Amino acid sequence: MPKDSLSLQLLGEFIGTFILVLLGDGVVAGVSLKKSKAEGSGWIAISLGWGFAVTLGVYASAFLSPAHLNPAVSVGMAMAGQFPWAHVIPYSLAQIAGGFVGGVIVWLHYYPHWKETKDPATTLGIFATGPAIRNYPANFISEVIGTFVLVFGLLTFTRGDFTQGLNPLVVGVLITAIGLSLGGTTGYAINPARDLGPRLAHAVLPIANKGGSDWAYSWVPIVGPLVGGLIGAILFNLIPLT
Amino acid sequence: MPKDSLSLQLLGEFIGTFILVLLGDGVVAGVSLKKSKAEGSGWIAISLGWGFAVTLGVYASAFLSPAHLNPAVSVGMAMAGQFPWAHVIPYSLAQIAGGFVGGVIVWLHYYPHWKETKDPATTLGIFATGPAIRNYPANFISEVIGTFVLVFGLLTFTRGDFTQGLNPLVVGVLITAIGLSLGGTTGYAINPARDLGPRLAHAVLPIANKGGSDWAYSWVPIVGPLVGGLIGAILFNLIPLT
Amino acid sequence: MPKDSLSLQLLGEFIGTFILVLLGDGVVAGVSLKKSKAEGSGWIAISLGWGFAVTLGVYASAFLSPAHLNPAVSVGMAMAGQFPWAHVIPYSLAQIAGGFVGGVIVWLHYYPHWKETKDPATTLGIFATGPAIRNYPANFISEVIGTFVLVFGLLTFTRGDFTQGLNPLVVGVLITAIGLSLGGTTGYAINPARDLGPRLAHAVLPIANKGGSDWAYSWVPIVGPLVGGLIGAILFNLIPLT
Amino acid sequence: MPKDSLSLQLLGEFIGTFILVLLGDGVVAGVSLKKSKAEGSGWIAISLGWGFAVTLGVYASAFLSPAHLNPAVSVGMAMAGQFPWAHVIPYSLAQIAGGFVGGVIVWLHYYPHWKETKDPATTLGIFATGPAIRNYPANFISEVIGTFVLVFGLLTFTRGDFTQGLNPLVVGVLITAIGLSLGGTTGYAINPARDLGPRLAHAVLPIANKGGSDWAYSWVPIVGPLVGGLIGAILFNLIPLT
Repeated sequence: MPKDSLSLQLLGEFIGTFILVLLGDGVVAGVSLKKSKAEGSGWIAISLGWGFAVTLGVYASAFLSPAHLNPAVSVGMAMAGQFPWAHVIPYSLAQIAGGFVGGVIVWLHYYPHWKETKDPATTLGIFATGPAIRNYPANFISEVIGTFVLVFGLLTFTRGDFTQGLNPLVVGVLITAIGLSLGGTTGYAINPARDLGPRLAHAVLPIANKGGSDWAYSWVPIVGPLVGGLIGAILFNLIPLT
Repeated sequence: MPKDSLSLQLLGEFIGTFILVLLGDGVVAGVSLKKSKAEGSGWIAISLGWGFAVTLGVYASAFLSPAHLNPAVSVGMAMAGQFPWAHVIPYSLAQIAGGFVGGVIVWLHYYPHWKETKDPATTLGIFATGPAIRNYPANFISEVIGTFVLVFGLLTFTRGDFTQGLNPLVVGVLITAIGLSLGGTTGYAINPARDLGPRLAHAVLPIANKGGSDWAYSWVPIVGPLVGGLIGAILFNLIPLT
Repeated sequence: MPKDSLSLQLLGEFIGTFILVLLGDGVVAGVSLKKSKAEGSGWIAISLGWGFAVTLGVYASAFLSPAHLNPAVSVGMAMAGQFPWAHVIPYSLAQIAGGFVGGVIVWLHYYPHWKETKDPATTLGIFATGPAIRNYPANFISEVIGTFVLVFGLLTFTRGDFTQGLNPLVVGVLITAIGLSLGGTTGYAINPARDLGPRLAHAVLPIANKGGSDWAYSWVPIVGPLVGGLIGAILFNLIPLT
Repeated sequence: MPKDSLSLQLLGEFIGTFILVLLGDGVVAGVSLKKSKAEGSGWIAISLGWGFAVTLGVYASAFLSPAHLNPAVSVGMAMAGQFPWAHVIPYSLAQIAGGFVGGVIVWLHYYPHWKETKDPATTLGIFATGPAIRNYPANFISEVIGTFVLVFGLLTFTRGDFTQGLNPLVVGVLITAIGLSLGGTTGYAINPARDLGPRLAHAVLPIANKGGSDWAYSWVPIVGPLVGGLIGAILFNLIPLT
C-alpha cells in the first residue's frame, strides 16, 4: 500500500473520518429522530453502530493512510514514537473536515425527519456529544479515562498498525466496549474530530427545529481525549519491553 | 473455484440472493408477524439479521460466483472496471429470480402467521421496503447514500473480491452498519433485486390479508441503488492509487 | 487431530452436544425463568445465545470428532458422501445422550428458579421446542426449511469441515441467523438431538411445577430436521462442481 | 513475546485484569446507574460488555503474560499441567490488585452518578456479584458449573494459549455465552479476582449512598470458581489424547 505521500494520507484520513461520522452520527440519528424505523433501539444499537462505524472507517481509509481517524490517536501515536509530530496538525484538520462532511450527509440523509423532531437537545445529540450530568471536571475525567483505554488498548494489541488482518474488527470491538462500559457519562466522544467536525456542521446547517450548538461544553470532548491519549501513550511507553 | 462458466455464475447469484432474501425477509417476518416467537424484537434484530443474511448469501454463492447478489453491486463493479458490462443484465435477472424464490419460501415458512396479521402494510413490509416518511426525492437520496456507502465500502476493503478470507463477515458488518445508521428512512433496500424480487412474490402469492404491492414507490429502491452504486464506483476510481 | 477411533469420535459428539445444549437450553432458561437476572431479554438474546452455544460446542468437540452435534447434520453429511452411513446411528445416540446430560445440568444450574416459575409451558420450552401456532404440516415444513438452510449452508461454506479456521464462528452465525429469521414459527429445533435429549431429561427429572413433555409434537423436531438435512445435501450434490 | 520474567508476567496480569474489571464493572455501572445514557440496556448489554471486556483484557496483557486474568484459570492451567503451581499465588494477587484498581477507576469515571443512585444493592452489584435467589448451596453449584464451562472450554479450544490468532475473540464469545446462558443465577463471577478485587474497592471507597459489601456471600464467588476450574481441568485431563 502506497502510504508515502502526505496528500494521499490526508485523503485517507478524510475519507475514513467521513465514513466514521456518517455511520456513527447516523446511528444516533436513526435511534433518536422521530418516525425513524430505528427509533428507540437504545444504547446497545448506538454502541454497536459506533463500533461498526469505526471498523468501516478504518477499512475505508486503510489503503491510503494509517487510519487514525482521531486527533487523540495521532497525538498518542506521536507520543509513542510511531508517528511524526509534524503530521499531527494536518492529520487533525483532515479528520475534522471528514467529520464535518459526515455530519452534513447525515443531515441530508435524514432530511424529512428533522422537522418531525421537536427537541433541540435531541438534534444536537446526533451531531455532538453532551454530558448526562453536566459537571465539567467529572466530564473531563470521563473523556480522559475513555480515551486512555482507547489509545492504550490500540497500542497493546495493534502495536500501532490498525489496518492489518483482524485489527479493524478488534478496533471496532474496542469502540463498542468503551461505549457500553464508559459511554454512559458523556457519550464517549474520545475523539476531537468526531465531536468538533459535526458540531460545526450543526452550527452552520439550516436544520429544522435546531437550537444552539453548546459551545460551552465543546472543549471537554477536545481536551479530554487529547490528554487521555497522551496518558495512554506515556503509560504504554513505561512498560519495559525487550 | 471454477468461476469460468456464466451459467454456473448465474446459478451462484441465484442461490446467494435466494439465501439472502430468505433470511433477510425472514427476519422482518419473524419480528413483524403476529404470534411469531421473535415478534417485537426491533430494529437491532432486523439489522443484525440482514447482515447475517448477506454474509451467508455470500458464503452460499462464493463457490460458484463473485457473490454480487445485487444489481447495484454488479453495476458498480462494472463501472469500477472489475466486471464485464455485458454480464450486468443476466446477473441482475438471476439475482431478481433468487429474490423472488426467497420471498416465496418466506411465505411458505410462516404460513399460519399471515392470517393472524391483519395490517396489510406490515405484510408488505416483509417483502419490500417502504419509506418512514413518504417523500420521493428524500427517499431517493437516502437510497443513493446508503448504496454509495455499500459500493464504495466494498471496493475499498475487498478491492472487488468479496469472498476471500474474512470478507464475507466484513460485508455483513457493512450491511448491519448501513441498516443501523442509514436504514431508518427507507428501510435500506440498497439492492434492486432484494426489493423487486420479493415484491413480485408479494404481488402474485395468495397471502392472507394482503393489500397492494405499492408499485408507485417501487422505482425508488431500484433507481436509487443503481445511482448510488455508480457514484460509489466513480468516486473510488477518482482516488489516485499507484 | 486423531479422529480415527470411533469411540473418541463418539466422546467428542457427546461432549460437544452436551455443551451445545447446556448453553442453548441455558439461555432459554435464563430468559424465561422467574427471578433470573436475564429474564425478559427476548428473542435476540436467545438467538445470539444459541449461536454461541453451537460455536462453543463445535470448538469443544473439534479435537475429537467432526463436530456434527446433530443427527440431521450426520445424515446430511452421509447423503453428501462425506460421512459413512454406518456411523449415523452411533453418532446420533451419542448426540442425544449429550443433549440429555446438558438438560440435566441446566436443571441443576437453575435449581432454585424452577419453583418460582409457575407456567409448565414455560418450563417445557426450556428443554424442548414447541410451535407458536400448532399446525403439524406447517410446523413440519418450517423445520424442513430451517434444516435445509443449515445443511446446505454448512456444505457450501465449509465443504464438510466445520472445525477449521473461522468455521466454528461462521457456524454460529448460521445458527443465529436461522434463529432470527426462521425461528419464529417452531423455535428452530433443526436438530433432533437438541430436542429429544433434553425433552427426555424434562420427562424424567423431578422439576418443580412441570407439566407434560408434549410427546404428541415431538416427532416434528425429529423428522422435519432429518428431511431438511437430506434435501440440503441432495440439492448441494446436484450442483455441478468441477 | 518475552514472557520469561515473572515480574513482567505479573504486570501483564495486573494490566489485563485492570482492563477487564474497568470495562466489565463499567458496563454494569452504565446499565444500572441513574441518569447514565446506557441505563436500562439490560442483560444483553451486560453479557456483551463483559465478553468484550475479557477479550480486551486478554489483548492488553498478551504481550507480557499468558492472560489468565483469573485465579480459577491459573489454578485450572496448573492442574492441567500447563502452568507452574508456584506461580498461582503471585498471579492471583496481581489479578486481585488489577481488579481493585479497575473498581476504583469505575468509581471515578461515573463520579456524579453515585449520588443519583439511591439503592445500595444496585451500587454493590456494580462491584461484586450477588445471587438472584440467595441459596448458598445452589449459588455455589452455579459458580462451579459456570467456571467448569469456562476452564474446560478454554482448554479444548486454545489448549492453554489464549492469546494467539482469533483466541482472544473466542474467549470473549465464551464469556458472553456463559453470561447469557448461565449468568442468570449468580451473575457469573466465574473469577475470584473479578469479584474480590472490586468488592474490596467497594468496601474502602467513599461511594455515595453505599451500603455493606455483603461479605457473607463473598466466599461463593471465590470457592465456587476455584472448584469449577479444577473440575474442568481434571475432566479435560481424563480425555485420552494421542
